[in-house]
Amino acid sequence: MAKKKIDKPKSNCGVTAIYGTPDAAHLAYLALYALQHRGQESAGIVSYDGKLHKQTGQGLVADVFSDQERFKQLKGTWAIGHNRYSTTGSTQALNAQPLTFNNYMMGPFAIAHNGNFTNSGIIRKQLEKTGSLFQTTTDTEIIPHLIACSNKETISKRIIEALKQITGAYSLVMLTRDGIYAARDPHGVRPLCIGKRQNTYCVVSETCALDLLKAELVREIQPGELIKIDENGITAFPFQTQQPCYSCIFELIYFARPDSRIFNDNVDRVRRKLGKILALESDVAADIVISVPDSSNTAALGYSRRSNLKFELGLIRNHYVGRTFIHPSQNMRDFGVRVKFNAVKGILDGRRVVVVEDSIVRGTTLKQLVKHIRENGAKEVHVRVSSPPIVSPCFYGMDFPSKAELIANNKSIENIKTYLDCDSLHYLSHEGLLESVKPHGCGFCTACFTGTYPIPIEDKIGKYQHEQNEA
Amino acid sequence: MAKKKIDKPKSNCGVTAIYGTPDAAHLAYLALYALQHRGQESAGIVSYDGKLHKQTGQGLVADVFSDQERFKQLKGTWAIGHNRYSTTGSTQALNAQPLTFNNYMMGPFAIAHNGNFTNSGIIRKQLEKTGSLFQTTTDTEIIPHLIACSNKETISKRIIEALKQITGAYSLVMLTRDGIYAARDPHGVRPLCIGKRQNTYCVVSETCALDLLKAELVREIQPGELIKIDENGITAFPFQTQQPCYSCIFELIYFARPDSRIFNDNVDRVRRKLGKILALESDVAADIVISVPDSSNTAALGYSRRSNLKFELGLIRNHYVGRTFIHPSQNMRDFGVRVKFNAVKGILDGRRVVVVEDSIVRGTTLKQLVKHIRENGAKEVHVRVSSPPIVSPCFYGMDFPSKAELIANNKSIENIKTYLDCDSLHYLSHEGLLESVKPHGCGFCTACFTGTYPIPIEDKIGKYQHEQNEA
Amino acid sequence: MAKKKIDKPKSNCGVTAIYGTPDAAHLAYLALYALQHRGQESAGIVSYDGKLHKQTGQGLVADVFSDQERFKQLKGTWAIGHNRYSTTGSTQALNAQPLTFNNYMMGPFAIAHNGNFTNSGIIRKQLEKTGSLFQTTTDTEIIPHLIACSNKETISKRIIEALKQITGAYSLVMLTRDGIYAARDPHGVRPLCIGKRQNTYCVVSETCALDLLKAELVREIQPGELIKIDENGITAFPFQTQQPCYSCIFELIYFARPDSRIFNDNVDRVRRKLGKILALESDVAADIVISVPDSSNTAALGYSRRSNLKFELGLIRNHYVGRTFIHPSQNMRDFGVRVKFNAVKGILDGRRVVVVEDSIVRGTTLKQLVKHIRENGAKEVHVRVSSPPIVSPCFYGMDFPSKAELIANNKSIENIKTYLDCDSLHYLSHEGLLESVKPHGCGFCTACFTGTYPIPIEDKIGKYQHEQNEA
Amino acid sequence: MAKKKIDKPKSNCGVTAIYGTPDAAHLAYLALYALQHRGQESAGIVSYDGKLHKQTGQGLVADVFSDQERFKQLKGTWAIGHNRYSTTGSTQALNAQPLTFNNYMMGPFAIAHNGNFTNSGIIRKQLEKTGSLFQTTTDTEIIPHLIACSNKETISKRIIEALKQITGAYSLVMLTRDGIYAARDPHGVRPLCIGKRQNTYCVVSETCALDLLKAELVREIQPGELIKIDENGITAFPFQTQQPCYSCIFELIYFARPDSRIFNDNVDRVRRKLGKILALESDVAADIVISVPDSSNTAALGYSRRSNLKFELGLIRNHYVGRTFIHPSQNMRDFGVRVKFNAVKGILDGRRVVVVEDSIVRGTTLKQLVKHIRENGAKEVHVRVSSPPIVSPCFYGMDFPSKAELIANNKSIENIKTYLDCDSLHYLSHEGLLESVKPHGCGFCTACFTGTYPIPIEDKIGKYQHEQNEA
Repeated sequence: MAKKKIDKPKSNCGVTAIYGTPDAAHLAYLALYALQHRGQESAGIVSYDGKLHKQTGQGLVADVFSDQERFKQLKGTWAIGHNRYSTTGSTQALNAQPLTFNNYMMGPFAIAHNGNFTNSGIIRKQLEKTGSLFQTTTDTEIIPHLIACSNKETISKRIIEALKQITGAYSLVMLTRDGIYAARDPHGVRPLCIGKRQNTYCVVSETCALDLLKAELVREIQPGELIKIDENGITAFPFQTQQPCYSCIFELIYFARPDSRIFNDNVDRVRRKLGKILALESDVAADIVISVPDSSNTAALGYSRRSNLKFELGLIRNHYVGRTFIHPSQNMRDFGVRVKFNAVKGILDGRRVVVVEDSIVRGTTLKQLVKHIRENGAKEVHVRVSSPPIVSPCFYGMDFPSKAELIANNKSIENIKTYLDCDSLHYLSHEGLLESVKPHGCGFCTACFTGTYPIPIEDKIGKYQHEQNEA
Repeated sequence: MAKKKIDKPKSNCGVTAIYGTPDAAHLAYLALYALQHRGQESAGIVSYDGKLHKQTGQGLVADVFSDQERFKQLKGTWAIGHNRYSTTGSTQALNAQPLTFNNYMMGPFAIAHNGNFTNSGIIRKQLEKTGSLFQTTTDTEIIPHLIACSNKETISKRIIEALKQITGAYSLVMLTRDGIYAARDPHGVRPLCIGKRQNTYCVVSETCALDLLKAELVREIQPGELIKIDENGITAFPFQTQQPCYSCIFELIYFARPDSRIFNDNVDRVRRKLGKILALESDVAADIVISVPDSSNTAALGYSRRSNLKFELGLIRNHYVGRTFIHPSQNMRDFGVRVKFNAVKGILDGRRVVVVEDSIVRGTTLKQLVKHIRENGAKEVHVRVSSPPIVSPCFYGMDFPSKAELIANNKSIENIKTYLDCDSLHYLSHEGLLESVKPHGCGFCTACFTGTYPIPIEDKIGKYQHEQNEA
Repeated sequence: MAKKKIDKPKSNCGVTAIYGTPDAAHLAYLALYALQHRGQESAGIVSYDGKLHKQTGQGLVADVFSDQERFKQLKGTWAIGHNRYSTTGSTQALNAQPLTFNNYMMGPFAIAHNGNFTNSGIIRKQLEKTGSLFQTTTDTEIIPHLIACSNKETISKRIIEALKQITGAYSLVMLTRDGIYAARDPHGVRPLCIGKRQNTYCVVSETCALDLLKAELVREIQPGELIKIDENGITAFPFQTQQPCYSCIFELIYFARPDSRIFNDNVDRVRRKLGKILALESDVAADIVISVPDSSNTAALGYSRRSNLKFELGLIRNHYVGRTFIHPSQNMRDFGVRVKFNAVKGILDGRRVVVVEDSIVRGTTLKQLVKHIRENGAKEVHVRVSSPPIVSPCFYGMDFPSKAELIANNKSIENIKTYLDCDSLHYLSHEGLLESVKPHGCGFCTACFTGTYPIPIEDKIGKYQHEQNEA
Repeated sequence: MAKKKIDKPKSNCGVTAIYGTPDAAHLAYLALYALQHRGQESAGIVSYDGKLHKQTGQGLVADVFSDQERFKQLKGTWAIGHNRYSTTGSTQALNAQPLTFNNYMMGPFAIAHNGNFTNSGIIRKQLEKTGSLFQTTTDTEIIPHLIACSNKETISKRIIEALKQITGAYSLVMLTRDGIYAARDPHGVRPLCIGKRQNTYCVVSETCALDLLKAELVREIQPGELIKIDENGITAFPFQTQQPCYSCIFELIYFARPDSRIFNDNVDRVRRKLGKILALESDVAADIVISVPDSSNTAALGYSRRSNLKFELGLIRNHYVGRTFIHPSQNMRDFGVRVKFNAVKGILDGRRVVVVEDSIVRGTTLKQLVKHIRENGAKEVHVRVSSPPIVSPCFYGMDFPSKAELIANNKSIENIKTYLDCDSLHYLSHEGLLESVKPHGCGFCTACFTGTYPIPIEDKIGKYQHEQNEA
């Protein structure tokens, strides 16, 4: 669940919206807390009681909202919240979401976004030509500008007009004077679902947040669906539902929490299946199976079951790693991985070890880890990866390193094995990957493994250009 | 010079722009420091080296910029700066000036403003109707939106088009990719002048800032004039110069620093003259003249000269008053004035005292002061005010209490005397006031003394309405 | 490894000393980082280069030392460090260790302490009678005062004279002008060992810190042994070695990190053995075994092996819990445990579940956890505890709740089962506990399970009395 | 009154003690606020309600106590307070006064000190030899250690025993479980007086603090007198009253506030007299007299009266100077004095100017000021100093630069005149100085003007030596 790992893609963001309780800000806070793994850079909540009230800050949710005072200011019975790991827009405070606006025509407005628009550069340029002034460098901000420029009469129609102009991946929550809105892109890339707790509606990125709130899952928001929550309950506005659907398969492999249910499936079940198929594909004579904790735990357990090798806790993860870790200046360069993981010599010593890892990006951490495992006495180290080689970046909301840094883009499997200095290396096959996930009336996006992008990317470089002249 | 006094109008703001030195941010800082009396709530500097760099903070200039680190980030050879006491826009951090924008069409843009627009509510509403989204509640922000919506080709023409739509009082500095701009409203209400220091141009609200920078005064910016400073030096764009001129007479009475030269006159000279005429108008048998330090010092000295009464330092001002002063909770309510001023008993005891004060707003502080002077042995206390009674609020950038709170609006002079519990009270006459100032090809705005507003006020309530739905 | 768990005894402290490298402060920092589980309340390092340099702060090591600036000030080639969870002395900043003193006779002196003296109240009173003034409320401070009052000639002899007057449990590190000192109490209650990294000596509470530093274990410091490290290497001063030895068995059950080696044994091995014997003692028909992560993981794995029940990850631990967690005010009281642990429904649903927990203090968290597991579909919940019932507080450095709050002190096993609402409950037997640990020429203290205190406690209430008049 | 001036001796400290009101901490705060000129480096208050409560911080009183929360923690009806400018002891936080101790024998104890002991090094060494451990590097701390080592039965007797061992200059306040104590050294060097406000006793360094509290002056504490305040009111313990008395004449010249009454005289009266005698001694043909504000104002006014030259406000002091002022890095070195003072050209231009300054230490600021006055048009500049040349450092609590830096120690008057580049220079004569002050049954210390030290200095270098091994 912990996502501060070295050498993993950075998650996108987590969003929530709460409707109908004086505890709205508190519930939004708890939901963000449960969604912490989706973004650790900043957190923010906006509530509404006729006026907008906003509290944001850098860091973890529990640190940003460590003061009751903040909740006293978040008055009202509606709220939306956001955990951010920036995908577009630099990391400056100004970009902290939810974004808020006050406009004579549409009234107070707040928005939070998980995903990435693929034509935001083009739209922004058009809007600026006609006099729009942007206050942030986020792609999110084009939505309120499009809404502000719409001539439609109702807020619902204005929002739909705006969404139809956008391409890309998004799960959005919005707060207006008419109620709460939530929307999911026509391809259903990122998860978003609705829950209910007594008379309170809760929109969240993943169901693990509903569990914390003790809310019942009502349903997922459909691809291409806008929903509105107000005193009449939920009203659905399907605005573009005939598109093929491409849910992000990496959510199931790594991003989402194992106790969540997304894309109509249990994340835990999928990961165990990935491990089992991996074991079938890559049998090897060994003594024990260990995981790279915590994100590979379930796959490693699956591997252990199918291979009949013992599951052991050979690596201990240090959960006290802070945001800033000061590295000693001299001759201590190689201790990076040991700060995060310590090997248990009593378990590894003299054993042939299978190490299960969910994915490899640059390979730098894993290389150190293999060395560390060997130094603690392992006779053999066999690396098993519960996903295929990553060869292409994501334009739909995940933050990978550049293509040049992806190890599988530069080296053959054999060469990666040599680089990692392991005794054998096996990646899960594409077929094995697709066999692990359930059909849910929907396809999956596997662009990071294939380089085939199902949704058009109109401005690949667009996501960087707004930042150039930034204050 | 100290303006944190109880019961005085709050000043408006101070602005500066520096062009042509790697020390630009440092010089802007010094200029703001010299202009501290014009706004103590927040301070900010934006510099430019192809990109905008912004540093703002709450509090005094020396506190906001107490760290060399801040200057390292303010790269570039152009800069603008702002001291703020908010007149419109709530005090939230978001409103800290200079405001910055990045726009595809006009590039990076920063603006700082001293004054108050009188039709900003109307213009904002129009802009919002056509899709503009505002990020602040300041009236200042309508300028960049008007510029962004302009179809003119050059930035200069766009700025002029924007300024022509605005009414009210303003001295503005702007930073664009083409150079620095500065403008003064057609009525010349607030001061603004240009200085030169070696090859560096310095635009400042008052000449005292040029003195600190060791810059020579070049000239005042004319009412209705926009100037641009770039590699070709100063270019003037007179955009509306045929309007009658109404410089704020209160700048001379109280706001400006005594060592400044504004509206073509020495502030110090005017204040001494006010004191002299006041003495002529209100002779009284007394032993000594004291001032309410520091703002009334010069007028008191003038009074002393003309009346042949000894000038004494009967009140000591405490300059350590911080931004927050914790008042004891119990039976200590009446000590407020003594925190700021202590009476010197050795001077007051047994004497008939003339107290010179520059202006009276609510009268609450002066009432306590008169009591304090009496308690230190004064036999008689004669209050002399070096300006006429204040009867109306200002819509051009000064922050008075509401009309209902202005004592001279509610009470006759006789009743004010009774309220203050002084032995005699005299306000300077209108004639005396106008006799003290020099004709400078320009009239004066005396609306606060007369209720006659020379510049139309299209939305009196406008300045409050944007804040209603604020986040 | 994570010790911020609800309803566990609070650990004591971690200490380190580094001798002989310009990186001394950095190595101390890393050692403290590896020992974070022994104290999360404050951290401090003192280095020495002829002068003492001190940096301490509230919070986690990585947060206290998040700034390179702090290391620049920690000059010198010797350093000692301390992680604190206060056992005596209130939590005020003044008490942050290492404590430092400058004395004409003995020069600069710093000390850090893990443990608890059992006669500190009596000694302190005696010292105060003869004129000693204490600056903290810690029991640690009696050591420097005893040293200062000693008439012996050398620092070594002064320290020994001081240690001989003290009873209780302690592992100490000290920094003097003559070198680094480390000492362990005559009963060997708390762990302390020496490692070597190139020419640098490293004293640490547990070997996991040596692993991070890539230092080799030299040996444990013996009970009743003082060692000095200087340019001549290690000099041993056995000062009281004929005492029977009582190592804290709870270090092995819960406190120490599983990858550490203490009391001549692997912690990991002991915990697995505890789980295995527990399985032998308490067989039950069930489908899966889960642990309360992370501290019970190894015992649960041992249980699973011996019982032939599948080990599953049925509870997910949230590692983002901050120091302060704001609880919503209304009707949300029961969500505490879900903030820390989320159940994975896919795993628990319809299953008979064995839950392995390392120890039960109050039982409050475990009760909520059982409920949570049931709500996620478990058909049966069988609680297995890998240690005997806790019936008595610790006076040797662990912080339990008061005797009245210990559930096993108030209820029979049957009643605890009813309270927890589980289908069966079994605690490890005393015999099983002792069978799991290796004889190491030393006995074990099991006072918390038996109420029999092997080391005299001269002032049970002493540890609270100094705080009464505290500033 | 403002003492942050460049090139003046730093003041010593201000102290206060309040007895008998639930508002004790609040009154102490106000007293410290009125005494701010005596120390701006840190401030602290300790209150007592059976326990000691302490709040200290760096900076001005109003900044340190800007939060009501701090007062909530300062419970009790007794309090003592301290403004510090360090004279001995480095500026570290640990040294912030009041110092507090908790001791089994004498109970809670707090102390605050204005002055300087002249045998503290010797006493500290003796105390350390017998086992005392010091927590600070202040000379103040020897008092509590001496008290702790005393065998006397009552606290009063213990304090007297301690005071008799000390030589030097001091005004002390102490808080014990028996009541408040205050003491003044046998030579009466620093001021200290008692006031009463309803049933509340107030001990303060200067009467200006009594004025703010609306307390009546009861009397000065006598040289060599210890007083105790408890439920029986004031009890006096004269412990050494037959010594000759040497009050610090510099308190009257510069340190004390002009509205204070110390050493049985009005500060304001003395300063005016100094100015008058200065005028008699140094008549010169000139047009105007100006002061270096604010500390020379009264002397300048006295000079103006006697010389019949007009008093003018030729220099404006900037009161917004913060604690840290960032100086631009390049070619702006000469602007230092202009940051603090701006010249009013309209007043100086074409005039022959007499500048009255209260004292000259290094002369660096005055040199810049003379230049600045000339640049603003003054035809002649005549410097008049209202005290004799400073030739020797102070060992009784004032912080001068070293002897080598005192300009009058290195240069003749003629050469100082050349250095300052003024048209004439006159210092007040010794006779003139002594003529200005009133005999009050007491002599004056004029060591800084004469080099003759009336109180023995046993360890001149002592005040620096404790800091050498400081943490």
